[in-house]
Amino acid sequence: MREFQVTPWEVSGEVDYERLIERFGTSEIDEPLLRRIERLAGGLHLLLRRRIFYSHRSLDWILDEYERGNRFVLYTGRGPSGHTHLGHLMPWMLTRWLQEKFEAKLLFQLTDDEKFLFKQELSLEDTKRFAYENALDVVALGFEPDKTEIFLNTEYIKSQYRLALKVAKRTTFSTAKAVFGFGNDTNIGLIFFTCMQSAPCFLETERQGRAVPVLIPCAIDQDPHFRITRDAAPHLGYPKPALVHCKFFPSLAGGSKMSASSPESSIYTTDSPEEARRKIMNAFTGGQESVAMQRRLGGRPEVCSVYSYLSYIFEQDDARLEERQRACRAGELLCGECKQYLAERVLEFLEEHQRRRERARDRLEEFMVRD
Amino acid sequence: MREFQVTPWEVSGEVDYERLIERFGTSEIDEPLLRRIERLAGGLHLLLRRRIFYSHRSLDWILDEYERGNRFVLYTGRGPSGHTHLGHLMPWMLTRWLQEKFEAKLLFQLTDDEKFLFKQELSLEDTKRFAYENALDVVALGFEPDKTEIFLNTEYIKSQYRLALKVAKRTTFSTAKAVFGFGNDTNIGLIFFTCMQSAPCFLETERQGRAVPVLIPCAIDQDPHFRITRDAAPHLGYPKPALVHCKFFPSLAGGSKMSASSPESSIYTTDSPEEARRKIMNAFTGGQESVAMQRRLGGRPEVCSVYSYLSYIFEQDDARLEERQRACRAGELLCGECKQYLAERVLEFLEEHQRRRERARDRLEEFMVRD
Repeated sequence: MREFQVTPWEVSGEVDYERLIERFGTSEIDEPLLRRIERLAGGLHLLLRRRIFYSHRSLDWILDEYERGNRFVLYTGRGPSGHTHLGHLMPWMLTRWLQEKFEAKLLFQLTDDEKFLFKQELSLEDTKRFAYENALDVVALGFEPDKTEIFLNTEYIKSQYRLALKVAKRTTFSTAKAVFGFGNDTNIGLIFFTCMQSAPCFLETERQGRAVPVLIPCAIDQDPHFRITRDAAPHLGYPKPALVHCKFFPSLAGGSKMSASSPESSIYTTDSPEEARRKIMNAFTGGQESVAMQRRLGGRPEVCSVYSYLSYIFEQDDARLEERQRACRAGELLCGECKQYLAERVLEFLEEHQRRRERARDRLEEFMVRD
Repeated sequence: MREFQVTPWEVSGEVDYERLIERFGTSEIDEPLLRRIERLAGGLHLLLRRRIFYSHRSLDWILDEYERGNRFVLYTGRGPSGHTHLGHLMPWMLTRWLQEKFEAKLLFQLTDDEKFLFKQELSLEDTKRFAYENALDVVALGFEPDKTEIFLNTEYIKSQYRLALKVAKRTTFSTAKAVFGFGNDTNIGLIFFTCMQSAPCFLETERQGRAVPVLIPCAIDQDPHFRITRDAAPHLGYPKPALVHCKFFPSLAGGSKMSASSPESSIYTTDSPEEARRKIMNAFTGGQESVAMQRRLGGRPEVCSVYSYLSYIFEQDDARLEERQRACRAGELLCGECKQYLAERVLEFLEEHQRRRERARDRLEEFMVRD
């Protein structure tokens, strides 16, 4: 097996999600925990049922507190280095569901500072522009305006800076180096940045003057930031934030993660129907070299990006997904048909999302907070 | 000669100011430059005449621009880790004079973030409290309210953060390590902080949308911050800030620099007349072991903290200072008399300063800016 690396700024190799749980020291979202969520929420979101959200920290504590009447706040975000792709939407979809089921407030951080610091070619104007574009996608997902605060770090820095400083004071370069793999050539902004990602974890506790639990739905590559947060929290008198981690949304080129740097392997929420369809029709599948071979040997859903798309989000019916897998392996289903099926669903989703996204332009200010 | 170290956070050993010019790569404020300032300002401030402000970067350029009609902005500041002592006032006194003579706007930064990050025992509430106390001393010196902006970093972060990020992106950990002597155990806030000290250098250029020259009067230990600023500036499209550097105000215990950590060696602007007098009467001098020996051998003004106090600020008359030195060396003047003379002058200064400082409480808001 190839070695893999997962940090907030670099995912490489074929990710082994089970080993990542061990490596990061997180816990599996197991059957009893799923049943508990189901009982409290009155159902289970597809991304939990399908084990796309598969790992957590302190989720049991969040539910304990909830049952005691101490409601949690949700916190997630986005690094605005480009347009939103379907992979980015995934944690926000679960977040949206959690907001509804647990009547939770959401803090949504747009890290325009981080992406400016990380991407040589991006200016602060670029990352701000992308941040506002990305915010449209957040609003389009249907968050409740009176329970949602979206902010850019450069515009909401005063509210966060003091909290960031408190984390910074307790975090040495050694720690940041060990957690993120920083070197001597890392810029000092990026070294500091993790504290900014910590800050919203403590914001509501500061505001309310009491310990408010925070739950962070995010892709597992963001976990290192919150290890630092969780180490600092008890020393600062704040509760440790809890997390639920998802796997990466698959790349249409095959492999573990959509990459913003190869646009053909990702579908953006701003893609036209033609672009989206073309990308899907060119996707990497688990098919054989010829139709004849496929009829005889069957396909391999376990390596197929089209199957992944369906199983992550786009085929919500478990029985139909199961049947599709069976038919593929049996050689009854060809890749072209499967791509066509996915394309229809993706286009249907995009059409609706883009309509809601346009409507969000007029409503954005209901969600944005600034200092 | 003992080896000495000078960084913004550590001054140790006996400072050789001439060698510091070489080591830092600054320039001496020489006779022609002094004459030029004198001509433009219609006089020369004591601290320039006495060569307490003795080193500079690009001061000639600042004067070139001034003569072309491009007025400079002044920028200085204070790290609010405690009350203000006389050493802190020195650069502000020159700054006040420069404001008057060159009709210059002043930006005054209170780095409550820095001192929180640097001092284990200080909270953000502590450094904020000291910042407001220190601001009273600034106002007491007579700056013009319509030309002066005083701000705390935590309260004026939004205006500075974007500028700080731009410097941060261009500054690696290697550079910060080399300039400040950071190690793996340095906290990541302190590593980032230097960018905050850079930010005001670019603030007026951003506001006015044209290249505004900036002159920074400061003690020479602050120069390393501005080496980083000056390296980054051309890449960011800003003019490099210019600097004039002063020597450290002497310690009453002897040695190069007043230390906030040994309160008996410094006179604070909040000291009572009794405290100030006691500290001066206990000061380290260049006297001999007995009166008889002193009458015979004479004293040594070159190591005497009382003489330093007089020569830095408290004896403004050059001829009288000269005569005092002669009389000391000749054994005509005893340390007790000299201390008495200094005490009177310091108490007179403190009385007036403290009166102005109290009046400043009501006027402080005319000077403070916040986001």
